[in-house]
Formats: sequence, structure tokens, C-alpha cells
Amino acid sequence: MGKKQAKTAITPTRSEDYPEWYQQVVKASDLAEPSPVRGCMVIKPWGYAIWENIMRDMDAMFKETGVRNAYFPLFIPLNYLEKEAEHVEGFATECAVVTHHRLEKGAHGGLVPAGELGEPLVVRPTSETIIGESFSKWVSSYRDLPILINQWANVVRWEMRTRIFLRTSEFLWQEGHTAHATAAEAIERTAQMLDVYARFVEEFLAIPVIKGRKTARERFPGAVDTQCIEAMMQDRKALQAGTSHFLGQNFAKASGIKFQSAKEQEEFAWTTSWGTSTRMIGGLIMTHSDDDGLVLPPRIASSHVVLIPIVRKEKDRESVMDYVNRLAVDLKGQNYHGRPVQVEIDDRDIGGGKSWDWIKKGIPVRAEIGPRDIAEDSVFVGRRDKSHRDKAGIKRDEFVASIGTVLDDIQQALFDRALAYQQAHTLEINDNRAFYDFFTAANTDKPEIHGGFALAHWCGRDECEERIKEDLKVTIRCIPFEKMGSDTGGSCICCGEPSEERVVFAKSY
Amino acid sequence: MGKKQAKTAITPTRSEDYPEWYQQVVKASDLAEPSPVRGCMVIKPWGYAIWENIMRDMDAMFKETGVRNAYFPLFIPLNYLEKEAEHVEGFATECAVVTHHRLEKGAHGGLVPAGELGEPLVVRPTSETIIGESFSKWVSSYRDLPILINQWANVVRWEMRTRIFLRTSEFLWQEGHTAHATAAEAIERTAQMLDVYARFVEEFLAIPVIKGRKTARERFPGAVDTQCIEAMMQDRKALQAGTSHFLGQNFAKASGIKFQSAKEQEEFAWTTSWGTSTRMIGGLIMTHSDDDGLVLPPRIASSHVVLIPIVRKEKDRESVMDYVNRLAVDLKGQNYHGRPVQVEIDDRDIGGGKSWDWIKKGIPVRAEIGPRDIAEDSVFVGRRDKSHRDKAGIKRDEFVASIGTVLDDIQQALFDRALAYQQAHTLEINDNRAFYDFFTAANTDKPEIHGGFALAHWCGRDECEERIKEDLKVTIRCIPFEKMGSDTGGSCICCGEPSEERVVFAKSY
Repeated sequence: MGKKQAKTAITPTRSEDYPEWYQQVVKASDLAEPSPVRGCMVIKPWGYAIWENIMRDMDAMFKETGVRNAYFPLFIPLNYLEKEAEHVEGFATECAVVTHHRLEKGAHGGLVPAGELGEPLVVRPTSETIIGESFSKWVSSYRDLPILINQWANVVRWEMRTRIFLRTSEFLWQEGHTAHATAAEAIERTAQMLDVYARFVEEFLAIPVIKGRKTARERFPGAVDTQCIEAMMQDRKALQAGTSHFLGQNFAKASGIKFQSAKEQEEFAWTTSWGTSTRMIGGLIMTHSDDDGLVLPPRIASSHVVLIPIVRKEKDRESVMDYVNRLAVDLKGQNYHGRPVQVEIDDRDIGGGKSWDWIKKGIPVRAEIGPRDIAEDSVFVGRRDKSHRDKAGIKRDEFVASIGTVLDDIQQALFDRALAYQQAHTLEINDNRAFYDFFTAANTDKPEIHGGFALAHWCGRDECEERIKEDLKVTIRCIPFEKMGSDTGGSCICCGEPSEERVVFAKSY
Repeated sequence: MGKKQAKTAITPTRSEDYPEWYQQVVKASDLAEPSPVRGCMVIKPWGYAIWENIMRDMDAMFKETGVRNAYFPLFIPLNYLEKEAEHVEGFATECAVVTHHRLEKGAHGGLVPAGELGEPLVVRPTSETIIGESFSKWVSSYRDLPILINQWANVVRWEMRTRIFLRTSEFLWQEGHTAHATAAEAIERTAQMLDVYARFVEEFLAIPVIKGRKTARERFPGAVDTQCIEAMMQDRKALQAGTSHFLGQNFAKASGIKFQSAKEQEEFAWTTSWGTSTRMIGGLIMTHSDDDGLVLPPRIASSHVVLIPIVRKEKDRESVMDYVNRLAVDLKGQNYHGRPVQVEIDDRDIGGGKSWDWIKKGIPVRAEIGPRDIAEDSVFVGRRDKSHRDKAGIKRDEFVASIGTVLDDIQQALFDRALAYQQAHTLEINDNRAFYDFFTAANTDKPEIHGGFALAHWCGRDECEERIKEDLKVTIRCIPFEKMGSDTGGSCICCGEPSEERVVFAKSY
């Protein structure tokens, strides 16, 4: 092994080349891989298990708020998409379009599309218009409201530049859609679901977020208000981890979602929509992973513990495997947040390197067990949130009894570390020059590091927002709900006009 | 209300017009509805809950056999589909084809497809070819085998004649794909997964099935052997509820899934695939439902019990609702096969008709609770497997304590009834004339009833199979694994040549 590889399991390191480090972590951890279809990914079992855990836990949170799941068509007739003008404008440039419904032998012998459709079908980029059509049939009286629906599905947005998990042409997501009798109720639901997202992302993914609202320019196409949660990655760029939209009556008017009010008047409903996607897995990777590979928070990890039998002599194999199998049974008997602890046994006969494979895959706890450990009835344990050299022997029964606590410790340690990082790189900036320096490579020897979150005053005008975006590729990530910064007023970081509050500026994914 | 409606909740009845009865049951039970997209359905919450239960329970059975979930692209490049000749032949006539990746303003102002793709993409009708591509990268040594993968996904087959749940252009399914080092191991896996399907469909959906193998003509395109489970609907037609395919080395050769054997020889892998879909929900409806609507087996029901408060005087409302809410808490505290009993409270203020709504929705147990019941600390209970008139008062605590047993009773009663029906309409037929009579309306006054399952001898020749299909629209559903019928030999029902075993003939969905 070369000298460089001996230092870290992932090459390059974060500070050497952050984007390439990300790709290498995804590869080394066996989460996913590119597919032969442009911009689409294959989510491998170790990665899909994270998505299964996300679906299970987030779905339970949705259902607690009264939401139920349903399923709507993959295809949207073109004329439905056109019903809301801003909406279709926002998605027209990235739609996969189905135009034919069979294949037949072409002039050169190969198959060519045939059976042209009367009206082209768009593969859903999002489902407001097709779900709105159903809602319009389901609602006639105020007694039918609210309607609280969620869908777990795949969507397609034909992105020009793709990056695995973060921006793919096809991705998996959930999209919630609700309809209400009053604006107030819809606005409350918008905030409620953003709260669910923030709670989920912080408690399960261990990613601290800032809750706020998007500026008019950054809103979802067709929305009256877009609320979001923003997280800081280790290159100090922002990642939008979830959005919740108050759609006013825009989509209700486009789809004809009308109801008879208690006063017997015909009114349009008020709707919301809200979504999160496999993009969260990208955020998870970039928040916690290190130069040795993936680091998985236990609450959402594909598995919790790997047992690595150490068999150097064939005569030991049976007794070691017996011991390991019994240990696995006892660990699985322990509960972690209401479910059995998940245990892997790595019985591959490949000599060394097994432990490193699991470090790269980010499993929270590793335990090596050889004949000497068994003699002492102990196991040799390493935690993924600590250095790979930081391993210790622990009595077997103590290991079993404490596993839940250890997993909780790791979860908390990851959140604390991410929060400290976010706070260390969130700065109040009042001076235009300092602001530009913060976001340009000139002021740092690490070209891949992008300043961080700048809390700066903004006058509220599109022009200033646009200017900063053009100059620096920096956008307003959100106008935070909870006031950030020390003052109650100041002057716009761009034009110097008066401003009442600070907003969060950052480069972003 | 007219006299006719007073008799049954669904019009027409099964014997009046079976296909129309089916549509009306789907509608009245609120399971699903047609969508504006040709041949695609909207699965509503009451229907999607069944699919969620199917996914949860079937997924657990898969995982017990070592299968793990993953996710592969929705789109398949045309040249991948073409890799296996029989396969592409089988699906070419029903492929949705994506040809463009954006929309732009056309000559008449409306949007038209733009950005033509270099190579058209097919929306997956099944994923052997795209998953095979991944497998070819994952496998290099015999140590990498077996690979045991499943995917829960949507697929599209552009069907000309669609029927909700039974045959839709888009449907939800799971497709398992495995690769093995030996033919024997792949054949064993094919049978193992068919067993999982048979067990699931019988134990959870309460649908008795016959396991067997398809004739060569009815095989999956590209398969060496297709095994299936066949169920009898109440119109005596067969429904194929799941299939498991041994693919030999056909797809391994097409996709280049090669490995170094233990003897260091390069070999092609042996693969299998197996699938079930939302079609099972169609089978569920047609097996158990009656002229009053849907009947749901408890193990898979959207919910188990509905509590219907009876409030005739406003002064009683609070005490009745208190009683009902406390009862709901106690019921939810009961376990049914490892999960809490699911309870609905119908507190709609709509006067009568609430009970009928739940009968039509098929919920296993209904309990009405009014002031008089409360005075006696009892509830008035009806079971969906019995007549709607068959209701009885039962002490509240006894109701709570016995709910699990009652649900198990219902589950068993539904299975027993379906099995008795299947057996009553499965006949050994030896005479060609009797066979033709069995499948033609001439011999019955119920034109919608289609004979049943005919156990008849078949010589094994395509011509005879084809002749019967042309004459009667009757196909060989399967060559049963367990010998059916009383003899060990006979003569072909079509040509009279010698035959060694009886096969199952039926009309089918």
C-alpha cells in the first residue's frame, strides 16, 4: 500500500478535492452507483436501506398528523401541466416526454418508436396538477375538507448537470398535498409539515437545520409562500433538505377544487404541498462523513453493529463462530427506539481488511472477536464517530447491555459536531467588502471551501438579490423564522438601504 | 329508496352483471378510481392501505430468505431491451416511449415536445435488462454469488383494454431478481419464491391457490420455466396472482453476467425473476366481496374495526363519544399478529347510513354504540363475513378481549369459503363434448359464469392448446405441481392422444 492510502481510506480527502471525495465516499460505502441511463442512479442495498428507514420513520410522523397515503399516475397529460402558468414555466425545460406507446421494426431492422399518442404525456416532475384533478372530484362540501394526502413515488426532472443523490434525473421522494377550507388552516399545515421535516432531519439524520422562508425569486413555481429547512455541508455550502409550500388558491383555481361553504357559498379551496427526497441521503453523507468514508447516524443507519470474527487458525473457526452467533442473537434481543438492534456478521474468509470495509460503509459500531477475546469473554469495540485507532476491549455482557446507550451517544455526538461546525461557520457580516471576501477563494487557501452562512441585512429588493447571485453565485437560502444576528435593523449588504432583518446567504447545492 | 336497492348495497349483483358489479364494488368501497390518463388509476387511501400492508408483510417474508431491496432506473435505453430477443418481442407492442426531454412553445402557442433524445428510452415494463447490467458489474467471482435483490416500483405496460387493479397501463409491483452460480440453486430459488407467494396469498389474502408451471406458450418472454399461482374468482375465471421465473442463462448471456468459478473457469450466472403486483388487490376483491360490497380479510385490511357512535339526542353526544374514545384506546391496546388493532371512529354527523358505508368498504368488524348500549356496558357488533342482519350485543370488555380471536375467525372463514367455492367448481372432465359445454354459456342460465377449473388430460402439444384457446378462449392455467385428478394417465381432451397428467384449463383475467 502506498503511503497516502495508509493515511486515509478515501482518496482524495475533503480538503484536497471535496466534490471528488463525495463521489469516492458514495462508491466506497456501496450506497449507489451511476446507471447507463443519463443522470439516473442505481441505489444499492446499503443505500436503499437508509431510504427504507427514512420512509418508515417519516411516514409514521406524517400519519400522526392525520395524513394518509395514496398513489396517483406517473404520467401527466400536457394540458394538465399547462393549467397553472408559473408552474409549467418552472418545469418545461426539464420534462421527460412520452410520445409513443409501442416499438416496431424500423427501416434498418432495429426498433423505433411507433403508435404516436394523440397528446404527449409528461413523466411527473411533481404532481400538483394531476392530484388537483382528483381533489376537484373528492371535494364538494366543506365537510369533505381538509384532505390530507401523501404519496411516496419516483419523479423525473431532466437535469443538465447531475450528481448522485443530490441532483439526479429520476429521484425518489414523498410529496404531500392537502386542501383546506380556509387560508389560515392551509398556512398552519404548511408550517406544521415544515416542523415535521425539521424534527425528522435533526432527530433522525442528526443534521441541524435553519427554518425559514424563501424569497419571491426562489419560490416553488406557482406557490404563494415556500418554506424550507437549510443545512450546512462540510464544504460550508447550503443544502435545502425539505420544502413546504402554501399554494394559496392558485392550484385550486387551476384544477377547479371548489366547495360549498357552511354558509352555502361556493369557494375555492386553499392548498399546500411539501416534499423531501433521496437528496437527504446526499446531505447525510456530506454532513457526517470523514476522510475514512461514510458515517451513519444510528437512528437511520442501514445496520447498527457489525461482528467481525477473527479466525487465524482453522481449528478456532467453530468456537469463534458459535460465540459470534450467540452474541448476535443477544444483540438483536436489545431494543433501539422500539425496534431490534440490527446486526451484521462478516464471516467472509478474506484475511485482513474486513474492519476497513465497515469503516468505509459507516456502520456505527464494529466489534472484533477472536479466540483471545473469547477467553476473556470480551469483545474489541470501535465506534464510527471516533478515530479508527480508538478501540477498546469490553466485557461481552456489558457490550450487549449498553448497546442502546452507545448508539444514542453516537447519534448525539454526530448532531453536536455538525451543529458546532454550522455555528463556527455562520457569521454576521455588515460590510460589503467583507461579504465578497467571505465568498471568494481569495481569502482562503482552501479553494473548495465556500465561506459559510453569512447573516447579512437585505433591503428586500430583487435587484440586490440578483446582483449578489451574479457576482458570487451566492443566494439567499432563507429568511429565517427565528431572528438571527444581534441587531434589529441595519443596511442592505448590497445597496446600503435600510433593512429590518438579517437573511442567510450562502452558496448551495 | 327503490325496492331493488333495499335488497343489496351494490347494483348490479354478481349474478346480474359480474364485470359491472366489480367496478361498482371498487367505487363504493372507495379503493380506487380511473384517472384522466388512459388506463392509469388513482389508488385512494382505503385502497393504498391494503397495498401498504401487502408491502410490509411480503417484504418481511422476502427478507427472511436473505433478499434485500434496491432501486434501479425507471427508464431503459432501447438497446438494452433489445439484448434478449424473445424478451423485447414480448414487450414491444406495449411500451411507453420517452423521446424528448423538454417542452417549448409551438407554432400555435401551446407547448410541444422538444430536445429529442439521441436514443429513445422505454419506461420499464419489467427490469431484467437494466438490472442485469448492474449485476454484470457486481459479479466477478463465485464468491459474489448469489445476489438476491428485490425492487418495489411502478411499471408501465400500454394495455389496450384496461380494468382497474386487474390490468392497468401503470401498476405497482415488486420484482425480485437473483443470480446464482449453478442452475440447481437458481431453480431452487424459483420454487422458493413461488412458495413465498403461495403462502402470502393464502395466509394474508385468504385466497386459495394452485401452484404449477406454465406451458411453453404461456411463459414469460425469455424464461426457461415460468411457475405461477392460480386462484379462482367468483365468476369461476382464473386469476394469476404471482409468477416466478427460472431464466436459465438467457439474461446472463444478454447482459454479460459472468463469474470466475471455484475452478477458475469463466461461467455465465443463472438468474431468476419473480413478481406480484397491485393486481392482487383485484383478486382480493373478486374472491371475497359480495353483493353488499367489499369484504376484507383482517390480516390485510385497511383497518380492522369501526366504532359507530349513535347519537340521536344532542345531550347524549358527550357521554357517547367519551365511551367510544375509551373503547378505541382499549382496542388499539390489543395485538393482532404483532401489531395494534386498527380502529376507525365514524363521528360524522350524517344521521343514518353510516353502517352501510362501512359494509361497502369491507371493514371486518362494525360496532354500534348508543346510550342504551352504554347503559348495559355493551356494544352491538356485526361481522363482515356474515349477513348484515346478523348483529348481536356483546359485553364491552368481552368485545375488547376477544377481538383478536374474532379477526382470526373471520380470516379463516373467508379462506374456507373461497376454498370450498374453488373445489366445488373444479371438475375432472374426460369428454371433449363435456369440456366444450363446461366453458360455453349454452349449459347455464348465468352467462357471466365461466365453467370453472377443468382438470383434463393434455397431450403436451402446442396445437391442442392453441385450438382450445381459439375455440373457447380457455387456456392452460398451469400444469399443477401436486397431481390433481384421480388417474395416472388418460387421453388428451382435444386430440385423444395419450397423456400422463391432467392440467388446469380455465378462462382467465
